[in-house]
Amino acid sequence: MADPLAPALGVCYYPEHWPEEGWGREATRMADLGLRWVRVGEFAWSRLEPEPGRLAFDWLDRAIDTLAAAGLQVVLGTPTATPPKWLVDRYPEILPVGRDGRVRGFGSRRHVCFSSPAYRDETRRIVTLLAERYGGHPGVGAWQTDNEYGCHDTVRCYCPRCRSAFQDWLQQRYGTVEALNEAWWTVFWSQEVRDFGEIELPGQAVTESNPSHSLDFYRFASDQVVRYNRLQVDILRARSERPILHNTMGFFDHYDAFALAEGLDALAWDAYPLGMLEESPLPAAVKERYLRVGHPDLIGFNHDLLRGLKDRPFWVMEMQPGAVNWAKTNPLPADGAVRLWAHQAFAHGAEVVSYFRWRAALGAQELMHAGLELHDGRPAPASAEVRRVAAELAPVGGARPRVALLLDYEDLWATELQPHAEGWSYWGLQLAFYGVLRGLGVDVAVTHPDRDLTAFPLVVAPSLHLMDEARAQRLRRYVEGGGRLLLGPRSGAKTRSNLAQAPAPGPLRSLSGVRVDRVDALRPGVAGAVELADTVFGFTTWADLLDVDDASEPGAAQVLARYREPAYGGAAALTRRAVGKGACLTLGAWGDADLLSAVLRPLLAEAGVATTALPGGVRRSRVGRGALLNFGADDAAVDGVQVPGHGVTFLDPPE
Amino acid sequence: MADPLAPALGVCYYPEHWPEEGWGREATRMADLGLRWVRVGEFAWSRLEPEPGRLAFDWLDRAIDTLAAAGLQVVLGTPTATPPKWLVDRYPEILPVGRDGRVRGFGSRRHVCFSSPAYRDETRRIVTLLAERYGGHPGVGAWQTDNEYGCHDTVRCYCPRCRSAFQDWLQQRYGTVEALNEAWWTVFWSQEVRDFGEIELPGQAVTESNPSHSLDFYRFASDQVVRYNRLQVDILRARSERPILHNTMGFFDHYDAFALAEGLDALAWDAYPLGMLEESPLPAAVKERYLRVGHPDLIGFNHDLLRGLKDRPFWVMEMQPGAVNWAKTNPLPADGAVRLWAHQAFAHGAEVVSYFRWRAALGAQELMHAGLELHDGRPAPASAEVRRVAAELAPVGGARPRVALLLDYEDLWATELQPHAEGWSYWGLQLAFYGVLRGLGVDVAVTHPDRDLTAFPLVVAPSLHLMDEARAQRLRRYVEGGGRLLLGPRSGAKTRSNLAQAPAPGPLRSLSGVRVDRVDALRPGVAGAVELADTVFGFTTWADLLDVDDASEPGAAQVLARYREPAYGGAAALTRRAVGKGACLTLGAWGDADLLSAVLRPLLAEAGVATTALPGGVRRSRVGRGALLNFGADDAAVDGVQVPGHGVTFLDPPE
Amino acid sequence: MADPLAPALGVCYYPEHWPEEGWGREATRMADLGLRWVRVGEFAWSRLEPEPGRLAFDWLDRAIDTLAAAGLQVVLGTPTATPPKWLVDRYPEILPVGRDGRVRGFGSRRHVCFSSPAYRDETRRIVTLLAERYGGHPGVGAWQTDNEYGCHDTVRCYCPRCRSAFQDWLQQRYGTVEALNEAWWTVFWSQEVRDFGEIELPGQAVTESNPSHSLDFYRFASDQVVRYNRLQVDILRARSERPILHNTMGFFDHYDAFALAEGLDALAWDAYPLGMLEESPLPAAVKERYLRVGHPDLIGFNHDLLRGLKDRPFWVMEMQPGAVNWAKTNPLPADGAVRLWAHQAFAHGAEVVSYFRWRAALGAQELMHAGLELHDGRPAPASAEVRRVAAELAPVGGARPRVALLLDYEDLWATELQPHAEGWSYWGLQLAFYGVLRGLGVDVAVTHPDRDLTAFPLVVAPSLHLMDEARAQRLRRYVEGGGRLLLGPRSGAKTRSNLAQAPAPGPLRSLSGVRVDRVDALRPGVAGAVELADTVFGFTTWADLLDVDDASEPGAAQVLARYREPAYGGAAALTRRAVGKGACLTLGAWGDADLLSAVLRPLLAEAGVATTALPGGVRRSRVGRGALLNFGADDAAVDGVQVPGHGVTFLDPPE
Repeated sequence: MADPLAPALGVCYYPEHWPEEGWGREATRMADLGLRWVRVGEFAWSRLEPEPGRLAFDWLDRAIDTLAAAGLQVVLGTPTATPPKWLVDRYPEILPVGRDGRVRGFGSRRHVCFSSPAYRDETRRIVTLLAERYGGHPGVGAWQTDNEYGCHDTVRCYCPRCRSAFQDWLQQRYGTVEALNEAWWTVFWSQEVRDFGEIELPGQAVTESNPSHSLDFYRFASDQVVRYNRLQVDILRARSERPILHNTMGFFDHYDAFALAEGLDALAWDAYPLGMLEESPLPAAVKERYLRVGHPDLIGFNHDLLRGLKDRPFWVMEMQPGAVNWAKTNPLPADGAVRLWAHQAFAHGAEVVSYFRWRAALGAQELMHAGLELHDGRPAPASAEVRRVAAELAPVGGARPRVALLLDYEDLWATELQPHAEGWSYWGLQLAFYGVLRGLGVDVAVTHPDRDLTAFPLVVAPSLHLMDEARAQRLRRYVEGGGRLLLGPRSGAKTRSNLAQAPAPGPLRSLSGVRVDRVDALRPGVAGAVELADTVFGFTTWADLLDVDDASEPGAAQVLARYREPAYGGAAALTRRAVGKGACLTLGAWGDADLLSAVLRPLLAEAGVATTALPGGVRRSRVGRGALLNFGADDAAVDGVQVPGHGVTFLDPPE
Repeated sequence: MADPLAPALGVCYYPEHWPEEGWGREATRMADLGLRWVRVGEFAWSRLEPEPGRLAFDWLDRAIDTLAAAGLQVVLGTPTATPPKWLVDRYPEILPVGRDGRVRGFGSRRHVCFSSPAYRDETRRIVTLLAERYGGHPGVGAWQTDNEYGCHDTVRCYCPRCRSAFQDWLQQRYGTVEALNEAWWTVFWSQEVRDFGEIELPGQAVTESNPSHSLDFYRFASDQVVRYNRLQVDILRARSERPILHNTMGFFDHYDAFALAEGLDALAWDAYPLGMLEESPLPAAVKERYLRVGHPDLIGFNHDLLRGLKDRPFWVMEMQPGAVNWAKTNPLPADGAVRLWAHQAFAHGAEVVSYFRWRAALGAQELMHAGLELHDGRPAPASAEVRRVAAELAPVGGARPRVALLLDYEDLWATELQPHAEGWSYWGLQLAFYGVLRGLGVDVAVTHPDRDLTAFPLVVAPSLHLMDEARAQRLRRYVEGGGRLLLGPRSGAKTRSNLAQAPAPGPLRSLSGVRVDRVDALRPGVAGAVELADTVFGFTTWADLLDVDDASEPGAAQVLARYREPAYGGAAALTRRAVGKGACLTLGAWGDADLLSAVLRPLLAEAGVATTALPGGVRRSRVGRGALLNFGADDAAVDGVQVPGHGVTFLDPPE
Repeated sequence: MADPLAPALGVCYYPEHWPEEGWGREATRMADLGLRWVRVGEFAWSRLEPEPGRLAFDWLDRAIDTLAAAGLQVVLGTPTATPPKWLVDRYPEILPVGRDGRVRGFGSRRHVCFSSPAYRDETRRIVTLLAERYGGHPGVGAWQTDNEYGCHDTVRCYCPRCRSAFQDWLQQRYGTVEALNEAWWTVFWSQEVRDFGEIELPGQAVTESNPSHSLDFYRFASDQVVRYNRLQVDILRARSERPILHNTMGFFDHYDAFALAEGLDALAWDAYPLGMLEESPLPAAVKERYLRVGHPDLIGFNHDLLRGLKDRPFWVMEMQPGAVNWAKTNPLPADGAVRLWAHQAFAHGAEVVSYFRWRAALGAQELMHAGLELHDGRPAPASAEVRRVAAELAPVGGARPRVALLLDYEDLWATELQPHAEGWSYWGLQLAFYGVLRGLGVDVAVTHPDRDLTAFPLVVAPSLHLMDEARAQRLRRYVEGGGRLLLGPRSGAKTRSNLAQAPAPGPLRSLSGVRVDRVDALRPGVAGAVELADTVFGFTTWADLLDVDDASEPGAAQVLARYREPAYGGAAALTRRAVGKGACLTLGAWGDADLLSAVLRPLLAEAGVATTALPGGVRRSRVGRGALLNFGADDAAVDGVQVPGHGVTFLDPPE
């Protein structure tokens, strides 16, 4: 792994796509542009093994040598995202099956089921061959396992092998079928099973499946990915000392990225700011405003999450260098956007930003995706910006964020399995808190609730939905030790088995000092009101009605805000309870930006975190090299520091 | 059955969900709240028969005894909506098949096909066992067959057994394939069949199926439900003297509820005012207005339909006591809403209002559905309102409505199979007339066109689409005897076989005195104009262009209103023909509320039905205990009588 | 074929639907109305062959004789769109399979796969029998093969026979699998195949299929239709001297109508102006404006395309005589609309306009479709307009259009397979140019880019997407010879194999003098700006950024307009290059109507094509009998000539 203090650039390159006689010139141009890393090989199985057992690694030897000769380091990808046709025809069982029962065929990528023994065997074979050949190769500086696990909705497969593996997984988890029946409350609607072999996959019933059943299936499917990745990691680790990465995707949530990260040396993600904006549910006016630069917080949130997965620098393995091809509409970036995105990544703690791809593909599904070079090999407009970024790179240590945002994929799964409100979105709620914090100039660590939080004077938990005693105890210790914990709506509403707490918030009750007997859900377009410190604020989508336990006792939670909805009977919307040296706050409603800001600002002040109300579109990040990043078209200033439209101003390291 | 003049409250209770040691305390609390009925057992098959043939009725004995000891009467539900997994695995043929050809699996409920011989056999077995054991049990006061037939789109199944049963049903109906070919006009597109075995299920063809074919399939599927219910009723009736009910759903239209009702002693429905509003196609502003109380006419229409099914008091078997879980968004009710809904039901002629459910479920699909008790067994907020309702109950006889609204499920099926206008909705048209009548303070009996109508001085038929001589003769006799019949758009347009009348309105022509050679359809958002008594009114969606037959003859229909659309060539929109002592009016257009009001008010005056223009959100019902019901948040007054916001004012019985 | 200079009327008639005793009277009424042609037989297979091998042609003999006796000529349709049930049961393989893998069953029409050997055999048998019996019958004046190939999405079938036939087709096209791998760029994502037998059908993969693969499948499916039609044509041609037609549909694009046309004597289309408007994506306000007359350019474009398919007069085989039944909403036509549509067709060069259908069907799928007679056989309102049209018919030669619009179905397929912009629509872009031309009173020939274009002083190519040297050379010769060629966005972006040109516009580069290194795509609702001759215009959806090659050289393209988008770096939006005696213009953006008008008007002037800015809703056509056609409700005038609302004014033949 490159020195984390020396940020570098890279690119994704497909030598198999281009005539070999040009490789050398291409490598030279890469190096000349200031690139240092080149990812290679991750879709090349049909070229590495054109026929069953006939291996053809010689071209890859020469490609790596050519790149190395130009001073470039290779990230070598295992090619398991695209088994060739002959392999699929030999083992048709490796094809995944959709929830609709249809086999998903060959002809694009990710035509694989993680539970297929044949697929695991073939993976073991090809990865071993690659690891043995290149494990110690000086030109290979890192590994990438597979590519974008789960892309195109391929984590959750409904094939017979998955059904059987799921039954085994449940037996492992529950031991006895009685335990499972209890955990899933199958007494409801006579859903009881008599042995594990009777269990079906969810999503196949007449109406929605039992949410405990579905949640376990989501966990199982995520575990299958983690287990599959571990298979590759173990093979590589045994044969190579190079760091092993995997590249995930923005807002991808079908596996638990914290669990995946455990087996890897570093995490990467594939950042497509414009495609991500186009596909987002943001309002049309916001989309138009950020049409050519993307939304800073959609990007920044993923950077911060990636950094949080291992609490270390991360990579952007694929960064957009021009228009992409896969969004419904694919606009061009603004001048400066490519530079802005790179510095944003570094400011959030990236160690490598690698572009996808070197030269635009002449054919197939991604032929309309831009590269650093045009289809004909001339430099694309973005290459000038990349050259400038390379020149601007400077090794700088950053500052650790002092505010943590807690994220748990199981909470996401559980709440979205029972959204209860049409507008519910776990990511949406995370971004609501995140956007307010970033708009105040505050760096945020996105982290898992079971991590050590003591370094953070303020911890924001948008929705800690599934709660057990162990987690509640950890949170209590954090607060008692002086931490400030802000709990958002739906926190503590369910047990780990996805059953109702009785009453909510279950094990969080003694910490928060509140009880939630009723929740309200508002359809999109309907807003409610909250009164906080004599000011009326708005909320949408969700309200937990908070009742203070033992209100007259000393140490009871204080009510900071109440709902103004007549149907709520004067319930509290925001409470605060002093616990030990710290405090636990509970916010029942999905507040609008003004309400969240009003809740967060005093907490930040207490926590000693300085805030600055940033101009619209401007963000400040100091986790890596500190910078003001202007996603607006017009010049702006922050505390007297100028930052040009679509531009970057580097900040001195914080004292 | 309870005395119909003594309205009572009840609740749905699942003893199998809770520890037995708590049953007694729960029963005591129910009785203390003022409840009298407890529905039990309808999803408990896996607890009644945990393994094939191993019966476990002892716990049910104890549960019923416990409830009886507290003075509560049980409605015992047959558990056939949820056959256990072992049964499904033993007879996989009982699983239904969707129109898309996919088997709909185990894991929720209603995983059954009404045509499955194995399912009928197993039904016979379990229902007989229950009937024998509890048929004479003093604690069992009534039976419920199955639960919500057809929920989750399960009436129309596309399995091989249904195909075969449909062929038999057709042979029964038509005798010869020649008769069928003629009835379906299969000469069109070479759809002719040579024997009944050649007939496929509809909905499987390259484009839409023959509407006569589809209509017969809808009839068949409805008949299968009726026949299945009759199977249960016959078993119960032979072994028990208790009344037998079934609980249907609001606006459910995949079986003919009039036909189902024939075999039962009383009908119940499951009333979820807020869920029904959320899922309705009403405009957002109306939804926001009635967010926490529901729309009075959506609820009231179903009450009146239920009363009409057997022309006797009905039950609400499941009434919403807080938020439901199954709508896209699930808001909390307003203070007072739970009381308002109960009194509305009684005012419309309900004899029992039973809440769903006693205690909120800790897990599974409905864990976010409110109960009268919270998840932890404390009373939910609604219980105070229920206690108040119990105290307010008073035995009062009501008044029979003097206006009938005619509803025929076959007309619904036929018009929706060929909507011709995107905005067509049979329920929507029914509600258009219904809402205007209720807004004038008029009680309405929803009834079947083949019932005796002589008690009604005014009969409104929103769309009597399928017409034969026999029905036309009955209507003529009604009019000749002094009745006033208002026919709405699309009346008489088709034969019973779903063929075109030539010309329309076929057998209604001599009664109405009009001919319909052309119809117009307007897309949503487009309106037309009608001139009635020098005033211009609007209409949408549909226009029958009325031509008066023999206009110059004495006794010809008079034109009361004409269209103002240039394309209609001066056609009439509203006609009136005196026939015997009565009159038949024909309204060709789907009028807006003002037009319908202008048409109905003089008819009501003629009929001697007093009207009052009620304030928005206020309704008056006098079929049961007379009441003013205020669905608005603000206080209102009607003829000097005050009615508080979200409140009820009881009226003296009408003289 | 009737004399092309003597336009005539006709009707579609189904004697098998009606009692034989009425045929004579019906024929007399047809003749009396002024009709000359009667289409018969195209869905009558089950009546022609009620049992396998038992033929019953006698009734058809009598029907044709009856029509002939009334002076009517028959268009005899082959009945292959509706094989009877016994045939489908005998050869279930003829049923098509949807992209979802489901067999599409019997019960409507077009339940056939073009690749089925059994279906081809049965076609051969029944068509031969018909051709032998009626090939020389004096009452039969023309043939129609089948009916509306591809209706209900039946061109692209996913059955095993299609897979196999597709593999054969590819072997034919590419010879070796290496050539195919190269043409499809299968090296991407390891999509390489080792033999043709490995190739799957597209649309079955985990995510989108390779666009080169998909494009070839679209070509194959189109070829299967052409080949199937040729099978029928060859049989008929060998046994009959009568002209052979087929009736296609408006905007139908699953087969290449130019290719289909080659085997036929004339082309017909089925014109449903109101249904086409309702189903179109036009804005609600436009739809409301043209509610009862249809949009003139949606209709006119199809007329002009039909005329262009064979560069000769065409037929309207089915014309709407009242409301249709198949649109989401089916309004009545305005008074005068039926006459307006007929004269519009003749003004665009139709030789026959034939109404669908004579008498409205009493049953089945189309029972709500109007006819010239009502369900009961009385004349429908439209018949008076038809009688007037018949009286107004006059043999007149028309003028050839001087502007060509180039259309290539392969360009449509390729761009819509990779739309890149949500708003992209090939038809939409064609109509954008077409509408501006028609609004200027200009007649347009829609033609294929490989036709001889020398007769046209101006050729507009909205998007010549796939480009090879041969086509580019032909276009160059056209321009060098004095032609004016306007190339629209995405022209020349791809090779015939659907690979990227490197750089674009590939072989068009030397002709246009421009290079396209970047394209931009704008989501619906977002507009860009172009400056042309000091005026700012708008564009949407698409922008090719034009760079002028060798800008300082003599003969380089001139920049006529530039984009004003900052992200485009001053790229040109419109260029003009003088080549030989002519000029090639390139317009990079999808301009709004004002921009297109500003681009086209000077070109039309140069080309000597007179223009007149027509009032809204008025169109002028002079390809057949010249006429002003007013689709507006109000009277209008053009160059002093009055044209009443919804009316027609005939023009003197142009000098």
